Amino acid sequence: MKTVSENRCFGGVQGVYSHASQVTGCDMTFGLFLPEEAETNVVPVIWYLSGLTCTHENAIVKAGAQRWAAEMGVAVVFPDTSPRGEGVANDAAYDLGQGAGFYVNATEAPWKPHFRMWDYVTDELPRLLFNAFPLAEEAQAIIGHSMGGHGALTIAMSFPGRFRSVSAFAPICNPTASDWGRKQFAAYLGTDEASWAAHDATLLMKKRGFDGPMLIDQGTADQFIDLLRPEALAGAMAERRQGGAFRMQKGYDHSYFFVSTFMEEHVAFHAAALHG
Amino acid sequence: MKTVSENRCFGGVQGVYSHASQVTGCDMTFGLFLPEEAETNVVPVIWYLSGLTCTHENAIVKAGAQRWAAEMGVAVVFPDTSPRGEGVANDAAYDLGQGAGFYVNATEAPWKPHFRMWDYVTDELPRLLFNAFPLAEEAQAIIGHSMGGHGALTIAMSFPGRFRSVSAFAPICNPTASDWGRKQFAAYLGTDEASWAAHDATLLMKKRGFDGPMLIDQGTADQFIDLLRPEALAGAMAERRQGGAFRMQKGYDHSYFFVSTFMEEHVAFHAAALHG
Repeated sequence: MKTVSENRCFGGVQGVYSHASQVTGCDMTFGLFLPEEAETNVVPVIWYLSGLTCTHENAIVKAGAQRWAAEMGVAVVFPDTSPRGEGVANDAAYDLGQGAGFYVNATEAPWKPHFRMWDYVTDELPRLLFNAFPLAEEAQAIIGHSMGGHGALTIAMSFPGRFRSVSAFAPICNPTASDWGRKQFAAYLGTDEASWAAHDATLLMKKRGFDGPMLIDQGTADQFIDLLRPEALAGAMAERRQGGAFRMQKGYDHSYFFVSTFMEEHVAFHAAALHG
Repeated sequence: MKTVSENRCFGGVQGVYSHASQVTGCDMTFGLFLPEEAETNVVPVIWYLSGLTCTHENAIVKAGAQRWAAEMGVAVVFPDTSPRGEGVANDAAYDLGQGAGFYVNATEAPWKPHFRMWDYVTDELPRLLFNAFPLAEEAQAIIGHSMGGHGALTIAMSFPGRFRSVSAFAPICNPTASDWGRKQFAAYLGTDEASWAAHDATLLMKKRGFDGPMLIDQGTADQFIDLLRPEALAGAMAERRQGGAFRMQKGYDHSYFFVSTFMEEHVAFHAAALHG
């Protein structure tokens, strides 16, 4: 593992690191904010999964999570959203290929060799992190934005007991019924839609839900709201009697201005579960 | 004036606007955060001047000022750092020309026609802002980072009574004695160093100081600290008995990770002066 940069930030350290990934077959870069407490103790960790077109960097500089993570004594890890590099397949569209991994393991050409973000985020990167940094494996939570919200919700529901809490900003809620999902699942997973269901938060909510608190924020002025299908997940949460809140935030759009506005509440929500 | 974008943010609006500037002879873009109070009342305003290579946008997305401005009921304006465009002179170096206006009025070719950032920030843009937005002209404060810190300090000391408070993050403190200053002043103002003195915060501090509170934060691990010459301004402030604080922040560098860490305290510092 290589240190790309480390900057003092809110009394802790905002680091960026890269490593050769066996799962994705390329170098991967991630960010990690460690609060001051990490100098002397193992600290809880929040995973932050980013959206389409993002690298590890966007949320680090725009989401404003460090202030609250520092205050509440939790680490935040910022993985990249896909494999990258010259030998890695790509597509001219912003919503397929590099920057658009959709947190699945591709089974189809040309994506199969590198696009294994599910295994990367749920297996390889956690093992690396818990080995290299003072992070408490038994105290994990997960947040995501847009495509990353889809990732956070599907991963949280697929690994019962791993995450104490889950939250999302404007998540892709029902990708099997949206152009943000159908296109990518067909490319990465093939046309047999049976394999898609494991990666749809609404379908997972109907099937099993999440054993812990859940918080969703969605802006009413979100320019992508029709692609996100919040009504599907909100309905499924209510139907299941899932503990949690689905909040429609009046006037907010899809941007980091929206994300940063509610970041304090998301980090506090997770910190309560992590320190509890 | 044209609206480039408006995003709901912490209950207020983060706007970006452009306008044809008579002073710089080109289109200029600026950001303005208005807190919710501005829907019904005139609000105080903090000027935020940015550093080398920045546009209006860097601080908007990285400095984290909106959270505190919203909480404390103040607006923040984010001007660009130079004129820009095809007809505008430039230089291959990052520290001269576009992105490096240094908050002076150039008197020398090829800079003279457009590089008039002093007049733009102190005259044209304020007139436009107070005409178009619900901002209180009698309640202004000014912050800057690096080259913008130089701008904030020199402007605050040159317009007694206009700003109630001034602060800076890692300002260029003594440009007439630094390679961040001598090169640019020679280019913009010519080789007669007498004309440079009006744009050196340390010299202005020795000559007249600032009639109000002053706050400076400087990281001890700043990679540019030798160019900034904090010792010159800190010494001059103490010598003059200038009211204020010059704080050396252990381990912090020159980045927005440093700026955002102390932004809450800077906005609170100004809000106290503005609402007082």
